Amino acid sequence: TASGARAGSSLAHRCHQHSTAMLDVPFLPFCAFLGTLGLLCVAMVGTWCQHWRGGFSLDGSSRTFNWHPVLMVTGLVVLYGTAALVYRIPNTWSGPKLPWKVLHGSLALGAFVLTVLGLAAVFRFHNAQGTPNMYSLHSWMGLGTVLLFSCQWAAGFGAFLLPWAPAWLRALYKPIHVFFGSTILMLSAASCVSGINEKLFFSLKNGTMQYKLLPAEAVFANTLGLFILIFGVLVVAALARPSWQRPDSDSPASRQVRDALGG
Amino acid sequence: TASGARAGSSLAHRCHQHSTAMLDVPFLPFCAFLGTLGLLCVAMVGTWCQHWRGGFSLDGSSRTFNWHPVLMVTGLVVLYGTAALVYRIPNTWSGPKLPWKVLHGSLALGAFVLTVLGLAAVFRFHNAQGTPNMYSLHSWMGLGTVLLFSCQWAAGFGAFLLPWAPAWLRALYKPIHVFFGSTILMLSAASCVSGINEKLFFSLKNGTMQYKLLPAEAVFANTLGLFILIFGVLVVAALARPSWQRPDSDSPASRQVRDALGG
Repeated sequence: TASGARAGSSLAHRCHQHSTAMLDVPFLPFCAFLGTLGLLCVAMVGTWCQHWRGGFSLDGSSRTFNWHPVLMVTGLVVLYGTAALVYRIPNTWSGPKLPWKVLHGSLALGAFVLTVLGLAAVFRFHNAQGTPNMYSLHSWMGLGTVLLFSCQWAAGFGAFLLPWAPAWLRALYKPIHVFFGSTILMLSAASCVSGINEKLFFSLKNGTMQYKLLPAEAVFANTLGLFILIFGVLVVAALARPSWQRPDSDSPASRQVRDALGG
Repeated sequence: TASGARAGSSLAHRCHQHSTAMLDVPFLPFCAFLGTLGLLCVAMVGTWCQHWRGGFSLDGSSRTFNWHPVLMVTGLVVLYGTAALVYRIPNTWSGPKLPWKVLHGSLALGAFVLTVLGLAAVFRFHNAQGTPNMYSLHSWMGLGTVLLFSCQWAAGFGAFLLPWAPAWLRALYKPIHVFFGSTILMLSAASCVSGINEKLFFSLKNGTMQYKLLPAEAVFANTLGLFILIFGVLVVAALARPSWQRPDSDSPASRQVRDALGG
């Protein structure tokens, strides 16, 4: 019967909750760890460009290029990941959702602006050097990722922040937005890895500094690449974890949370 | 009340199903498309190595290396993706689960064997040429992915195929296995992309054949890289889609499916 089915479902649900409770990690300490890892990635990409690649400038030289990895890691990976996690903060589950939507959209917009500046840096460098743009697989993948991100931002803005999207459209689009949120982050991290790999082959060519001899710079930047991947995977894992997801605003679980929080 | 909450939850669930029904793609045509795309990736990586990179041999030359991309794309991406999708085939939802577990594990084992042969090819090539192994970020990421895959296979075999794992351990481990199933596939696709990018920079260096001039080989292999990424993202999307997931064997939905199928 239907009520038997519901009871069975509820029992299965509780069993599942019980078994996964053993792996329960509290969200906020996990976020503190993620934040530390993200800042470490930003610090490491900055250190790489400053210490080994000659620092930063806007003169069209390789010091202009150096803005590219720094802005991409900071914007498309770390700030993007931060934006993605906004709705997982339990404090955001009570009260009106709009301020959190604005925060989510603003952080994503900030990530997008840094990303566009990061693209501008590499185009400026190529144009100043007479190097063609957009030939490597890294560039195809990276630009594809940025284009997906811009569609994601525009569609999210249109569907969730502008007032006139009907509820059925939001319900239809939301799982797509959530799926592409994680997908774009993985593609971003993968783009960074292919870019770091490519840059190291370009830069480490001579004498004892060849990439294949693994000088300190190579170990440092390889480690940065692995940290970027681990950051991406951990953000996607945090997003996928059912118990960290914001209860749907129309579901009874959400009402219970609101009651419990007195919202 | 609890029954009101259940009714509300069931209503929200039906609304959600209604709104997503508009995007309903039937699983089997989607799989046929995925299978075609996967075979296309295998055909393209084979064509690249045969037509532009000199074909295949076991003599330690770059024709030995050529087995590396072919075996990695075939094993770690396409066959791995096939193994991951076994439980999404609706025919597998009725009757005993064991044969499908054996099929899933066997396909994954086949993918793993091809992967190890693919690693052997690049190590043999490097050793024959006196090139160091494991220096590039591509190699670190790729080997990390293969190590994760071997842990995933061994833990899945121990937890789900050997008879003595208790139910609570299976319930605890299953969401982890599912999460890493998708994660490893994305890491595999990302490793392939960084490898194709790196190989094109190695191979396309002279005259009109420089990578930056985008000769036909570069367009072909870049396109292969994008197809591999699209294949990976579509498999992960198919795995994530709730309506394509096998109902839990202990849940009433599963019993209903079994009843409906007369199993």
